[in-house]
Amino acid sequence: MRGAVIHGARDVRFEERPAPKIEKPTDAVIRVFAACVCGSDLWPYRGANPITAPTPMGHEYCGVVEEVGKAVNSVKPGQFVIGSFFASDNTCPHCKAGYQTSCQHRELVGGAQAPFLRVPLADGTLVPTHEKPTAEVVPDLLTLSDVMGTGWFGAEAAGVKPGSTVVVVGDGAVGLLGILSAREMGAERIIAMSRHPTRQKLAREFGATDIVTERGDDGVSRVQELTHGVGADAVLECVGTPEAMQQAIRSTRPGGAVGYVGVPHGVSLDGQALFFAHVRLFGGPAPVRRFLPKLIDLVEKGRINPGKVFDLVLPLDQVAEGYRAMDERRAIKTLLRP
Amino acid sequence: MRGAVIHGARDVRFEERPAPKIEKPTDAVIRVFAACVCGSDLWPYRGANPITAPTPMGHEYCGVVEEVGKAVNSVKPGQFVIGSFFASDNTCPHCKAGYQTSCQHRELVGGAQAPFLRVPLADGTLVPTHEKPTAEVVPDLLTLSDVMGTGWFGAEAAGVKPGSTVVVVGDGAVGLLGILSAREMGAERIIAMSRHPTRQKLAREFGATDIVTERGDDGVSRVQELTHGVGADAVLECVGTPEAMQQAIRSTRPGGAVGYVGVPHGVSLDGQALFFAHVRLFGGPAPVRRFLPKLIDLVEKGRINPGKVFDLVLPLDQVAEGYRAMDERRAIKTLLRP
Repeated sequence: MRGAVIHGARDVRFEERPAPKIEKPTDAVIRVFAACVCGSDLWPYRGANPITAPTPMGHEYCGVVEEVGKAVNSVKPGQFVIGSFFASDNTCPHCKAGYQTSCQHRELVGGAQAPFLRVPLADGTLVPTHEKPTAEVVPDLLTLSDVMGTGWFGAEAAGVKPGSTVVVVGDGAVGLLGILSAREMGAERIIAMSRHPTRQKLAREFGATDIVTERGDDGVSRVQELTHGVGADAVLECVGTPEAMQQAIRSTRPGGAVGYVGVPHGVSLDGQALFFAHVRLFGGPAPVRRFLPKLIDLVEKGRINPGKVFDLVLPLDQVAEGYRAMDERRAIKTLLRP
Repeated sequence: MRGAVIHGARDVRFEERPAPKIEKPTDAVIRVFAACVCGSDLWPYRGANPITAPTPMGHEYCGVVEEVGKAVNSVKPGQFVIGSFFASDNTCPHCKAGYQTSCQHRELVGGAQAPFLRVPLADGTLVPTHEKPTAEVVPDLLTLSDVMGTGWFGAEAAGVKPGSTVVVVGDGAVGLLGILSAREMGAERIIAMSRHPTRQKLAREFGATDIVTERGDDGVSRVQELTHGVGADAVLECVGTPEAMQQAIRSTRPGGAVGYVGVPHGVSLDGQALFFAHVRLFGGPAPVRRFLPKLIDLVEKGRINPGKVFDLVLPLDQVAEGYRAMDERRAIKTLLRP
């Protein structure tokens, strides 16, 4: 089969590689219906993470189960399933506590930008939809594999509650779906930090009540103005840079919380400054598996349309263009059809 | 009057200084019944914080109101009162949210190691006891001014709940009272990290179920062993050094929380390591004012005896020895009688 493989910075190729097969009795192989390019794929693409060998790309997926290993009981061939970017057994103490991305037996899922994908620990990882989805709803379901669950976790980690005043730092797909999540959790005011008209528009559509275009000190001042000098109850940091993290911390009221879901690159926090900021911090790889049943339900009921973040749809063989468009910020998020 | 003044590292003098008086209509002056030396006083004492001018010391206090300014309504001369180390108006948005130590008009209270003390924002800061306390209960009440409230906040910030498994890093007075707080909040298991027999004894008395004497990697391994490879639900960091903070983070299970109340000195956190640790962080100056009514109640009912942390009682004129004994870890905490 042919799939996406990264060879170096800005060098993603659509090329022949071995089709995945069942390697362990707990594996499943799925026929990928739709995959996509993640904001975090841009870190290696831009050279921020080293690439030591050609690596199959993609960790967001949904599709139909093709084959399962002998030990797999809860999913079966023919089912339409969604899973997280980390495979998890869903039975260890960390999974039971709801942190499946820290599963004691977790394995990264990789190579989803391809027609077929091996998913380890299939029983713990994959969640079937109630019905065979229509083509229309597939993009919504695909987001649940990572980006929507990650936005949701950002809002949960930031402690968003009914009536909260929320700031979202970052207008990528995760930030935009963080806005949608905060709205679902009952936030009263959602301040989106964004300078891009098309992203501002989607932010408003997803529930943003205010847009702040300033950054740095000016951005903090603007948030303080909008919150009458108090700061926000909950701030979602959806970028991962030092500037975004500082923006987030300084926008939060004492006793409030930053939920950070942008994978930190070069972020270092001064303990004493954090102490006197009096701000909660929580983040990490989103335990998407925990959210899947609820979010599938919200999508199937038509209550949320997170698939709107896909503003570029390409056949899989044009995956290189999918990366380029996101890198150059011409696209918010690229959906790939194998 | 004569009170404690620090002139430089390891140079605390009991010397003449002006008696405090009402400076603003919102002030009160109290006759100090008992004061003490705080673990955080040891930072300047040990030269870790610069001392640019002779500075009156002490920020933990209880005593009788001597005089109030014209705008003070809720406390009156003759009342026995306790207040926090930060004066707060208790009416601003941060106070209303329960974070009085981040009050928009906060002022540090200083110079409590003296017979008289000026307390700004007296209405917002001071809480009277229900009855005139007996001499026996004064040490318990004195701890509520900072050290007990700080241990309590550590446990709250770490999210201690009934049934929790808790680790307490630091066996100073704050750590020991963090143990007491965790027990009051219903923790099932409390692992105290301590190598000092007298402190281990008090830790057990306050509710510790296990003692770990190892530190660093060995300390982390021991906690992992005791928690069957899972880690603790809640960890209190009551020291403020980089080693203690790392010990705390690495002892916490994914999804668990570190409550840090040791004022950080030289602590720097790597964003990516924290992200993948999946650990919550919250701390800062304890909003003691919020806890005062509840904790006064627990003391008056005889339910808690936090005053047991005072293992050295000295007349105020021997304050220098009080610092020395704590610096050399001969005393857990020194109570001073003016």
